[in-house]
Amino acid sequence: MFKTEVYINRRTNLKNKLNKGIALIMGNVEASMNYPHNTYHFRQDSTFLYFFGLDYPGLAAVIDFESGEEILFGDDFTVDDIIWMGPQPKLADNAQKAGINKTFPFARLQEVVKKAQEQGRPVHFTPPYRGKNMMTMGNTLGVHPGKVKEMASVEFIKACIELRSTKELCELEEMERHMGTAYNMHTTAMKLAHPGRTEQEITGIIEGISMSGGGIVSFPVICSVRGETLHNHYHGNTLKQGDLLLVDAGSESPLHYATDHTRTSPVGGRFTSQQKDIYQIVVDTNNAALAATKPGITYKECHMIAARTIACGLKELGLMKGDVDEAVAEGAHALFMPHGLGHMIGLDVHDMEDYDQKLVGYDDEVQPSSQFGLNALRMGRRLHPNFVVTNEPGIYFIPALIDKFRSENKFTDFINYEKVEKYKGFGGIRLEDDVLVTETGSRILGERIPINPEDVEKMVLSGTK
Amino acid sequence: MFKTEVYINRRTNLKNKLNKGIALIMGNVEASMNYPHNTYHFRQDSTFLYFFGLDYPGLAAVIDFESGEEILFGDDFTVDDIIWMGPQPKLADNAQKAGINKTFPFARLQEVVKKAQEQGRPVHFTPPYRGKNMMTMGNTLGVHPGKVKEMASVEFIKACIELRSTKELCELEEMERHMGTAYNMHTTAMKLAHPGRTEQEITGIIEGISMSGGGIVSFPVICSVRGETLHNHYHGNTLKQGDLLLVDAGSESPLHYATDHTRTSPVGGRFTSQQKDIYQIVVDTNNAALAATKPGITYKECHMIAARTIACGLKELGLMKGDVDEAVAEGAHALFMPHGLGHMIGLDVHDMEDYDQKLVGYDDEVQPSSQFGLNALRMGRRLHPNFVVTNEPGIYFIPALIDKFRSENKFTDFINYEKVEKYKGFGGIRLEDDVLVTETGSRILGERIPINPEDVEKMVLSGTK
Repeated sequence: MFKTEVYINRRTNLKNKLNKGIALIMGNVEASMNYPHNTYHFRQDSTFLYFFGLDYPGLAAVIDFESGEEILFGDDFTVDDIIWMGPQPKLADNAQKAGINKTFPFARLQEVVKKAQEQGRPVHFTPPYRGKNMMTMGNTLGVHPGKVKEMASVEFIKACIELRSTKELCELEEMERHMGTAYNMHTTAMKLAHPGRTEQEITGIIEGISMSGGGIVSFPVICSVRGETLHNHYHGNTLKQGDLLLVDAGSESPLHYATDHTRTSPVGGRFTSQQKDIYQIVVDTNNAALAATKPGITYKECHMIAARTIACGLKELGLMKGDVDEAVAEGAHALFMPHGLGHMIGLDVHDMEDYDQKLVGYDDEVQPSSQFGLNALRMGRRLHPNFVVTNEPGIYFIPALIDKFRSENKFTDFINYEKVEKYKGFGGIRLEDDVLVTETGSRILGERIPINPEDVEKMVLSGTK
Repeated sequence: MFKTEVYINRRTNLKNKLNKGIALIMGNVEASMNYPHNTYHFRQDSTFLYFFGLDYPGLAAVIDFESGEEILFGDDFTVDDIIWMGPQPKLADNAQKAGINKTFPFARLQEVVKKAQEQGRPVHFTPPYRGKNMMTMGNTLGVHPGKVKEMASVEFIKACIELRSTKELCELEEMERHMGTAYNMHTTAMKLAHPGRTEQEITGIIEGISMSGGGIVSFPVICSVRGETLHNHYHGNTLKQGDLLLVDAGSESPLHYATDHTRTSPVGGRFTSQQKDIYQIVVDTNNAALAATKPGITYKECHMIAARTIACGLKELGLMKGDVDEAVAEGAHALFMPHGLGHMIGLDVHDMEDYDQKLVGYDDEVQPSSQFGLNALRMGRRLHPNFVVTNEPGIYFIPALIDKFRSENKFTDFINYEKVEKYKGFGGIRLEDDVLVTETGSRILGERIPINPEDVEKMVLSGTK
């Protein structure tokens, strides 16, 4: 964990934002896989990690915004536990590391929360996303587990978002330190992009690199020769010459900060000229969005710059037509890039997504859109120094979407469907970096993973055939 | 999945065992990691896999033991889903693969269960172990989610145990096919057992091999130079010359059958003579238990044979003393091996542990013991052909346990505490294979991972220094 002062400061900042009631901050418990004691890799709740840094299951905390009191709830291990588990830190020692002096057995959580409720004071919490925490919180709050989520505190969530959006120096150092693992994962995948290899094999190897580097993957790996399928966790294909391998993968640092990158490699090491044309548009779009990313601009504007770059490029290739500005305003480019330019990243790969994506990425000034494509943009609001966002434009040829748009006669002024039909089977290309907003502009975190087509080809060719 | 007939036969066998009420068999949903849409690797419920084979989230099934009717509950994907997820099989097509003709939307599950309840017919189910299923079942059954577990049907559980304990040929073939991945994981770990490597690094690499081989690890990897800590998932140590590296790791096959092996390697490639003495006792114990494993014997008897072999060996080294039979009867050897010889293995690494370990490993004939050590034996009952069990004896020097026994003056007739003190810091050795009970005896599944000390040394020395 970071130094104790980091957590004390964060809680002080939180207390400066709220002045009524208590915060109930639940840590996670182990998540059972196929029976109670067979569990997935433990992942602490991010809000709990942010304010307390303690990476153990079975904890909760209460912060009293009126008295300033902080209590850590948990249970010490018994002598019998220690025989099986080895020496374990005491709850009180863990509390000290987080700068907390008061500890209670977990069973007393309900009593403390109930007292605040009886006094008519608000109990602030973020929405639970795991069934077991819903049940514990239901018991603690005296409501049905299914009702807890809708009782979450918008005021508390907004305070957490304000704090967590701007990354501290120690957080940026942790993120940057872990970028080497991300680099390894992606360059290894490139070197393995040869005919005969399988998606499953490559997925395993890059998940292993993440784990060897100190943490689990930050989200389920996308490793597919069907890159046009955006939510694709099927790994059953064998790579063939001429395929494009899209790898969207990230790793958690030892302190659980996420990386998130996408690269798309030509299987066998050489792009076809058709592939290279589309690929170059995506590189140009990534670079244009990066150049635009700086304090003061909204990320929605960056998204629109990306959209325009894609539409221009596709028009040059004859896949789009008509007035580019009109096409982009109407959302015609979303046939090829139906998703947003990116999202905030930090302790979560989609940072703070458990709170409410709209509260994280939008505000009074910048409101979510309902237009297809733009409605999938997770982050729209104005950028500030030390925000970290992903920059992930892509171009896809999605047969089901092409058929749908065409049958609905959508965007016939802007889309050359005759030509688009010839790209069915092309797949998809996405290129994603993690970008820090600096005082004056922005920069990519870590050494940039090879992105120019010739560098990617070189990396693939240097690998195992 | 296996052929459709496999699942039809299993359900027919189940129907032959129960004749009243309905079975409610819940599939799993995705398990959220740090926000709702960021999920762990999907793991289907084993009971659902056994009877239906469908490896997708969001399904449930009802079997009516009176009418024989079978219904699969789930929801088809929408056109919008398909744009993001690519073409998806229809619920009805999936049902056909499992040999089921009737499908209902998931929302109708409650209605079907309620009807049976209103008719006063029993609703049989196994105990849920995930919070979200507890909540769904609570809603379905009209009870509080926290009450569902205690309503599980012992009659249904016993029927499932009877079916699943005896592995079918197709299951054994699947298990045996996947043993190559287990072999790779363990020999790779051996080759990496050199000073300067870290536990975390090795853990990542073997988890990656599992995933590349088609499935997640079957349980959280134990990879530790502190092998005496039995429940050890800490991977923060760097290997040093003279350490023993204990690796207890398994992999799930593509159809989710588990492997589970343990090997213990000398870091750097050479056992010290003290290490080799203890190691040889564990090899001898493993071999003695294997030789004893056959139809007709109880696994408790095999456990006692292992215990006796350990006590004999330790007496020869002067760590134990007195009458070996008496020592074993009183449980003195459990200072060194406080756990059981093994457990059943199949679709779960501790097969069917979600049901109730006592019902899986014990019966009217062989009852669980309360003696320390023997009380940790998961499988005690009589063996039958096509049972698969783990054979995993070990010897550990656990400082907290040595101190506890000594301070309580336990087993002073059998333990030479003066000498035992000198082994504090030794660590622990465990050697584990997966064993099939055949018609006439038993055999190890897959090629045996190197186990003799000279073979292990050779494997370590062949690796990266």
